[in-house]
Amino acid sequence: MIRDRFSENIKKDMSTEEWLICQDTYDPQENLKNESLFALSNGYLGIRGSFEEGTRVTLPYLYVNGVFDKSETFMRELAALPNWLGVRLYVEKELIGIENCEILEFSRVLDMKHAVLYKQYVLKDKKGRVTKVEGRRFVSRHNVHRMAIELFVTPVNYDGIIEAENIIDGTIVNFYDAPRFKVKHMYLTANETLGEHGVYIESATRDRHLHVGTGCVLEAYKDGRPVMRNRMFHAFGEQAVEFGDVPVTEGETVRLVKYVSMYTERECPAYALHTTIKEEVDHFMEDGLETELRFHENVYDAMWEEADVCFEGDPELNRAVRFNIFHLMSTGNETDDRVSVGAKLLTGEEYGGHAFWDIELFMLPFFSYVFPKMAQNMENYRYYLLDAARENAKKNGYKGAQYPWESADDGTEQCPDWTIEPDGTCYRCYVAMYEHHVTADVAYGIYDYVRITKDLDFLYGRGAEVLTETARFWASRCEYVAEKDRYEINQVTGPDEWHEPVNNNLYTNYFARWNLRYVMSLIRTMKEERPDDYEALMKKTGLKEEELEFWNTVQSKIYLPRKEGTNLLEQFEGYFQLKDVVIDQYDENDWPIRPEALKTCKARETQILKQPDVVLLLHLLGEEFEPELMKENYDYYEKRTLHGSSLSPSIYSVMGLKVGDDSKAYRYLKRAALIDLLNLQKNTREGIHAANAGGVWQTIVFGFAGVSIGKDGILNVKPNMPKEWSSLTFRLHYDNAWLEIRTDGNNQAEVRRLDGAPVGIWINGEKKEI
Amino acid sequence: MIRDRFSENIKKDMSTEEWLICQDTYDPQENLKNESLFALSNGYLGIRGSFEEGTRVTLPYLYVNGVFDKSETFMRELAALPNWLGVRLYVEKELIGIENCEILEFSRVLDMKHAVLYKQYVLKDKKGRVTKVEGRRFVSRHNVHRMAIELFVTPVNYDGIIEAENIIDGTIVNFYDAPRFKVKHMYLTANETLGEHGVYIESATRDRHLHVGTGCVLEAYKDGRPVMRNRMFHAFGEQAVEFGDVPVTEGETVRLVKYVSMYTERECPAYALHTTIKEEVDHFMEDGLETELRFHENVYDAMWEEADVCFEGDPELNRAVRFNIFHLMSTGNETDDRVSVGAKLLTGEEYGGHAFWDIELFMLPFFSYVFPKMAQNMENYRYYLLDAARENAKKNGYKGAQYPWESADDGTEQCPDWTIEPDGTCYRCYVAMYEHHVTADVAYGIYDYVRITKDLDFLYGRGAEVLTETARFWASRCEYVAEKDRYEINQVTGPDEWHEPVNNNLYTNYFARWNLRYVMSLIRTMKEERPDDYEALMKKTGLKEEELEFWNTVQSKIYLPRKEGTNLLEQFEGYFQLKDVVIDQYDENDWPIRPEALKTCKARETQILKQPDVVLLLHLLGEEFEPELMKENYDYYEKRTLHGSSLSPSIYSVMGLKVGDDSKAYRYLKRAALIDLLNLQKNTREGIHAANAGGVWQTIVFGFAGVSIGKDGILNVKPNMPKEWSSLTFRLHYDNAWLEIRTDGNNQAEVRRLDGAPVGIWINGEKKEI
Repeated sequence: MIRDRFSENIKKDMSTEEWLICQDTYDPQENLKNESLFALSNGYLGIRGSFEEGTRVTLPYLYVNGVFDKSETFMRELAALPNWLGVRLYVEKELIGIENCEILEFSRVLDMKHAVLYKQYVLKDKKGRVTKVEGRRFVSRHNVHRMAIELFVTPVNYDGIIEAENIIDGTIVNFYDAPRFKVKHMYLTANETLGEHGVYIESATRDRHLHVGTGCVLEAYKDGRPVMRNRMFHAFGEQAVEFGDVPVTEGETVRLVKYVSMYTERECPAYALHTTIKEEVDHFMEDGLETELRFHENVYDAMWEEADVCFEGDPELNRAVRFNIFHLMSTGNETDDRVSVGAKLLTGEEYGGHAFWDIELFMLPFFSYVFPKMAQNMENYRYYLLDAARENAKKNGYKGAQYPWESADDGTEQCPDWTIEPDGTCYRCYVAMYEHHVTADVAYGIYDYVRITKDLDFLYGRGAEVLTETARFWASRCEYVAEKDRYEINQVTGPDEWHEPVNNNLYTNYFARWNLRYVMSLIRTMKEERPDDYEALMKKTGLKEEELEFWNTVQSKIYLPRKEGTNLLEQFEGYFQLKDVVIDQYDENDWPIRPEALKTCKARETQILKQPDVVLLLHLLGEEFEPELMKENYDYYEKRTLHGSSLSPSIYSVMGLKVGDDSKAYRYLKRAALIDLLNLQKNTREGIHAANAGGVWQTIVFGFAGVSIGKDGILNVKPNMPKEWSSLTFRLHYDNAWLEIRTDGNNQAEVRRLDGAPVGIWINGEKKEI
Repeated sequence: MIRDRFSENIKKDMSTEEWLICQDTYDPQENLKNESLFALSNGYLGIRGSFEEGTRVTLPYLYVNGVFDKSETFMRELAALPNWLGVRLYVEKELIGIENCEILEFSRVLDMKHAVLYKQYVLKDKKGRVTKVEGRRFVSRHNVHRMAIELFVTPVNYDGIIEAENIIDGTIVNFYDAPRFKVKHMYLTANETLGEHGVYIESATRDRHLHVGTGCVLEAYKDGRPVMRNRMFHAFGEQAVEFGDVPVTEGETVRLVKYVSMYTERECPAYALHTTIKEEVDHFMEDGLETELRFHENVYDAMWEEADVCFEGDPELNRAVRFNIFHLMSTGNETDDRVSVGAKLLTGEEYGGHAFWDIELFMLPFFSYVFPKMAQNMENYRYYLLDAARENAKKNGYKGAQYPWESADDGTEQCPDWTIEPDGTCYRCYVAMYEHHVTADVAYGIYDYVRITKDLDFLYGRGAEVLTETARFWASRCEYVAEKDRYEINQVTGPDEWHEPVNNNLYTNYFARWNLRYVMSLIRTMKEERPDDYEALMKKTGLKEEELEFWNTVQSKIYLPRKEGTNLLEQFEGYFQLKDVVIDQYDENDWPIRPEALKTCKARETQILKQPDVVLLLHLLGEEFEPELMKENYDYYEKRTLHGSSLSPSIYSVMGLKVGDDSKAYRYLKRAALIDLLNLQKNTREGIHAANAGGVWQTIVFGFAGVSIGKDGILNVKPNMPKEWSSLTFRLHYDNAWLEIRTDGNNQAEVRRLDGAPVGIWINGEKKEI
């Protein structure tokens, strides 16, 4: 329900409610999920959608991307920072709070179009006093150091004083509701007044002492004039609280604005944090909330110009798709090239904010096509951590650079060797030890980013260095088996983690070969066309022609398992000897039902997969395979995949459409798009599924719109529209052009160039100059 | 309901349930009241009856008597110290908590006989797991530095692991639920492990840096063997938490014991706090909980031998009377003579733990008769603060010693000149400025303590010094009015604070005269009988014979207002000229109904009183007045007293019985005894009414048993039993004897000497040698 006060704001530029995520009832058991759904991020920081007044069930996390800490836990993880959301209002000591009062009206609305979270409620306290609270908050994307909360408070049936507390809460701990894992990553270094008014908390990460400052002022206005009085500052241990009185009159609305700013030592020397933040808040107050909000909304308008995916036929689904894009694009950062995007964005604490292979395979395509600057930053993030990857390879006895399975701020492996199970037993975690394909995925990411953006400067400079070192890694990783005269990669885990470890995983071996080949070809090109870059690369990496010759030998003899005499690729050596269990039952959503056979044996003893492995390879390097082979392998593996990862369905959707199986793609898309909105995996409380969000976008753009880049390096559009849609429109950056692609229900595609230089494109098999 | 596990413990030595305070339902709205009712104190510290796992509505305060802090607030108040109650148990991250689970069974029982708080509940969590928790806690009176919580935990329908958190919470702030008044008095100085196991928090008061240490170990036992594993210590800011796993089996009980110790810099140098506490906890664990508990119970058995008041005819009322005695005696301290007893004991935060005149007039008689050593400590407390009282007199332009209206640790005036109203406006508080009678009350306290205990060493030493300085104060406070040739005390407030200030308040003037006369007589006696003490006193106080002559002049000319030609004493000069409003309506409990007249004028414009003023004088110095005068004044003032203070009814009860009006005494007693148990004043959340508790005891002993000390200084027993009782038994210390007094329903009294030297006593008008 759109409420009165903000209806203008919420509705402007919106033809429908496809831009709104609404919550119309309050159930504390839904709090943690809703905190993820209603999280806001401006790329710099992310804050979950907790209530200003606090609730019993809450994980009120605020992260600044790049602020990690390990301390006594297993990994460097995004540190839960002091939270500035706190505004508590009281009437005669009674909290006007969602959990203290009778709820007469309630709603929250996330306006995705402008990244503003609205709330409205009417609460009746135990003494019968009724208060109407209408509010909104935003974290400015125009100036990422400005955040604000605005509350319009109306005492419906009483006069008097509303006592207000402006709070910054420095007591927050990570994993707050998991006693075994609770950890406090920040220690307090200052708890003081911001200036004449306002509160300021500074804290630092425990292991590296990175300082983070937060300051804010709460002001109350009546008819535009400040009315707060009797202010008192208190440092309550790690909580900073400023108390103030707001006189109120029955039926008359007061407006409260909390002006907030944060800086960290990543942008500002520690000694200057307080003054910088104070100035930022001062200027913010001078400019006014409305001004900043307008700028912020303009930024989002522009971002949606780039990012919106619009289709006719299923507005509910379109909203869900936007929801995924909203969170994904909100987290990408166009100015900071030292951060990546965590597996749960900045919306929750699972996976510690680490960059996984999800970056390159699931999210990067979206960013490369839609926000190429953000994609470039993500590539630079990998480049800056090349030295750490070199160290990692060395530590493990290899050459070149081995990227960590989980990457935080310093590029060391953050996937722990040991974890603790909920029952307290230790559990040996082999992922970092065996799952080596991430290094090829990083290489693939550069390749993919460049073929979309044609950012050759990156490719021939930083990219080439990373690629060379990853190739070098693979050359050292492969083992020569003399009796078979072939190179093998043994004791390895592929994308399908249910078979761990195996020998000669096809995905890994194929990508090792691809990595070597691609780099060899790149170096040849550079030698001819960019001799200066070539020289610089050879010098920087110490690469010699002999090493290239060795690589050539390795790549030519890498073993690629397949069923002899057929098109069937074998996921790993011996896979076809495993018990052949096939999925033969599906639920009403076409979701595979776990076969009975798995009750008596473990998945790893069967051919049942968690997620695509061979099929993922076909998806990524489709141009290298014949359509017939792709179809046969898709058919084979699809029947054996249980989609134990949220990354799985989107790949099958895209591949299915590619090989002519459109039976599941639409349903899979629906499921993927709704995974968080409907909490289908029951873990949305831990944050939004970021890779899945990227997969949703890929399913539409690569699957239904049939966008791909072929062997010739040219964009190809070959729609395969679902019968449910009558049109599909979205925009892409490709090469130096900005294109709008629109296809109708009959797969007739139209491409317009909105900006940039002319480009050639294949549309339904016809080459066109746009 | 008495539960199975502890039924033996609870029932031993108890013939009835008159020793138990029970709570059989859980209503969070009752939490704050119950926290006061179920508070435990061992004289050294007091802790409110909060739940170990925490609740939403709670004021989880722990005080150590004598640990005060002012900081930015208006007065030095008992600082809420780090709280060691926290024990949180989880099953798979689900808190086994009274507010998180469905309550299948619930009860709490305060065993007043042994000062042990029991609880039992059966809780079902959201996943259907049922857990039975039976527990008890005590703060040892045998060794006041030992406190413990014992929990028997039974997983009724599941196996697995219970995750336990052992918590000391240093985040506690005073006035937690009053945003305007919230203040944190302690700052953290250490948050660390106690030893190999356990947690330790040290904090200090903010203004004087008095250090307080708290340490504890949580252990779990199965069949007597420790079973806790995977312990992990965390310092979460100001919270110390030790996590541990407790393996559990369906239907099998594990026993958890939290061994706690506290010391402050008042008993132990700061550098030694941690080691002292660690050793105390180590020894406590060696001794075992049962051993310490047995010692503790023995101490309470012995205390009740002294303190119990037992009557036949109304077991409910007897329990309520015991409840008042329980809290009063639990707070008295027999070893520390630098602390007194606050107006809310150590059970709540109102009045900041300050000693008022309540000490001398309402509580001291109980302590003098029942626990003379505690009474002596309370007298010494006043003596140690004599220098501060001298300073206070000087500051106000007087001589001698002027005791503060509110006294904390340093004897400075702690009654603020200004307070803030709940609406934020400042309010000028005149009590400290005008209510001077407290200095005479302190003098009276010495007189009263000595006539009961015959502690002449105290009297002729410290007592005489205090008395001399208080007399000196009054001599300087009185103003000579030449035209009337009399001394007056103007601009003063008597016990009835509704008339503030007045001229020549009879109570004050009379007590000023009494103070001067008593000291003059004391000095004469000392000069004759204790010349050494006399010399010492004269030297110490610089008292000269001329000053004594001046005192004599003053006392002989102090104006004592009364209605000319009648027995009617006038509360203050001009009182009889005020509008004469009389109470003419009473509610069903004989409680006066506020007269209509007060709707159109203020109480101070009428003869309506808050609490006895003249009648209090008659009560305290009854031996100086004729029975007829007492009766007439009682009759007059009783009709004009609204009992706006909880101190009022008990005085009227005693006086009524003395002058032959037994119409209200029993009902007033009932009301007073139940004031907290039934939360009759709606403020039990702020703590137990300590002076009222003393008044309850006085009503029974001085009123119904008719105990008094006459002009001859000899104990007099002249019962005036209520028709509801068939007998009344209690014990007293008097002179050097320990006596048991028993009276039957016909006012036949029997006195037995249980210990000590023979004494002479008046019983119903007959002098007897006991």
